[in-house]
Amino acid sequence: MASKIEIEAWFKALQSSICQSLEGLDGVAKFKSDDWERKGGGGGLTRVIENGNLLEKGGVNFSAVSGETPKKILEALGLPKSDFYATGVSIVLHPVNPFVPIIHMNVRYFEMSNGTYWFGGGIDLTPHYIFEDDARFFHQSLRDACDKFDNEYYPRFKKWADDYFFINHRDETRGVGGIFFDRLSEGGEHTKGQLFSFVQEVGSTFVPVYSTIARRHMSKSYTEEEKQWQLLRRGRYVEFNLVYDKGTKFGLDTNGRTESILMSLPLTASWVYNFQTKPGSEEEKTLRLLKKGINWLS
Amino acid sequence: MASKIEIEAWFKALQSSICQSLEGLDGVAKFKSDDWERKGGGGGLTRVIENGNLLEKGGVNFSAVSGETPKKILEALGLPKSDFYATGVSIVLHPVNPFVPIIHMNVRYFEMSNGTYWFGGGIDLTPHYIFEDDARFFHQSLRDACDKFDNEYYPRFKKWADDYFFINHRDETRGVGGIFFDRLSEGGEHTKGQLFSFVQEVGSTFVPVYSTIARRHMSKSYTEEEKQWQLLRRGRYVEFNLVYDKGTKFGLDTNGRTESILMSLPLTASWVYNFQTKPGSEEEKTLRLLKKGINWLS
Repeated sequence: MASKIEIEAWFKALQSSICQSLEGLDGVAKFKSDDWERKGGGGGLTRVIENGNLLEKGGVNFSAVSGETPKKILEALGLPKSDFYATGVSIVLHPVNPFVPIIHMNVRYFEMSNGTYWFGGGIDLTPHYIFEDDARFFHQSLRDACDKFDNEYYPRFKKWADDYFFINHRDETRGVGGIFFDRLSEGGEHTKGQLFSFVQEVGSTFVPVYSTIARRHMSKSYTEEEKQWQLLRRGRYVEFNLVYDKGTKFGLDTNGRTESILMSLPLTASWVYNFQTKPGSEEEKTLRLLKKGINWLS
Repeated sequence: MASKIEIEAWFKALQSSICQSLEGLDGVAKFKSDDWERKGGGGGLTRVIENGNLLEKGGVNFSAVSGETPKKILEALGLPKSDFYATGVSIVLHPVNPFVPIIHMNVRYFEMSNGTYWFGGGIDLTPHYIFEDDARFFHQSLRDACDKFDNEYYPRFKKWADDYFFINHRDETRGVGGIFFDRLSEGGEHTKGQLFSFVQEVGSTFVPVYSTIARRHMSKSYTEEEKQWQLLRRGRYVEFNLVYDKGTKFGLDTNGRTESILMSLPLTASWVYNFQTKPGSEEEKTLRLLKKGINWLS
């Protein structure tokens, strides 16, 4: 019941099915595949799409790695030497059109030779321009997914995302948030099988939610200024990923495959010194909504 | 003798003189100035130049801040609660032309209420395309500056730069290095006055060295591919600054002025998944030279 073999197989199939759906949605570009092995044990399959109709750059990574647990993790958990096994799927998509949001999804499973295990994951949306309808639809979909398992999940994991996807040095959230969860394990009200089902639900929510939002905007025309604004917002995304993102930090610290870890970075990004939005502009409105604690479903 | 008032005044004058020289060299763009204050005490003057003939984006920052010593520093030094004072000049220049290198310079002075003080600083060069003549001239100039004070400085500080300006997750140096030094204090063979003179020498070396190298290349024509390569190399610069740079980390951790700290980021940068250079190309040659321990003066 929810063995690592079963979980790994499901994650691998999820990667494949998501890539297929995204190729259909894009209509032009195809995913490239890179198989890689990890020195300490295991490996992964990195799939990247570039220069598409919808997707300027996107990555859908699968990995299943194992070996000696990195010292940093052991210290953080206060545990003695042990082996670990970790598998997951990670996605970041940077669209061409500035009205289509950046999206990120991750589902992961971790276990150690002493029997400790947990699930983690999340989905969050980073619009360059915030459309409140999109944010509402996005959060409602995540809430629906959560509510099938536990009515406390959505409020708890929504707050967790607000706190986690936060660019402290900008005093901005990365986007309109979503859900984030970590260290989900037996011991509460749910069995391992139920937790795995929840993670499967999150993984399965990705394509329908993203497709709906992308289709709303992907054919809209945009100006050079709007594309410029997208590049500035991507700059913030780079800042979050390189300064705060725990997965990126962990990957780089433990000699992970750099090109797979940093597939999350956009094709192009920009930094303009002390850029100011125009009063009353859509850009200014977006900045005002990059705050923690907004209840998109009220 | 080398009081903080004297040091601060000299750094402030250095900023002004460097900006004037760079405006002359650029010929088109002018520096904007932003005065800012720090909540805990002190402040700075940020000067940024954008969209020039030579300089696409560059910052020359001066600051003199004081207040309670941040916990992180006290812990690192194993010291009890105390006040600090820090002043310095920091420069990063991103040129338009891919054949002109990125350059960084920093000189700084730090003291605490218990009497502890030190100087730090460095200059390093990050060519998008490495010209060995430039690297040789750059290192010879730094060696000449060092040798006026101590024959051991250049070899010691050159190695320090190789180790510090290193992008571990890429297994690449940031560029051709230069010199880096920290915690220079009395107690060795040099008085405080001599250490200050050395730091002044480093600060004064910046303009003639950079001008010489910039003039060699700033009027060269370049292709779209060469500009693209520059954007990829700038991506690496962003990675270094956000993942490893101690000044950036310290600034962001201690609620420094974000726009001043991140003036080091380029106007535009790019990330292409698993980009491969062509065998025998100038890009490949550059990558081969991004290694620690190259003796450019042999």
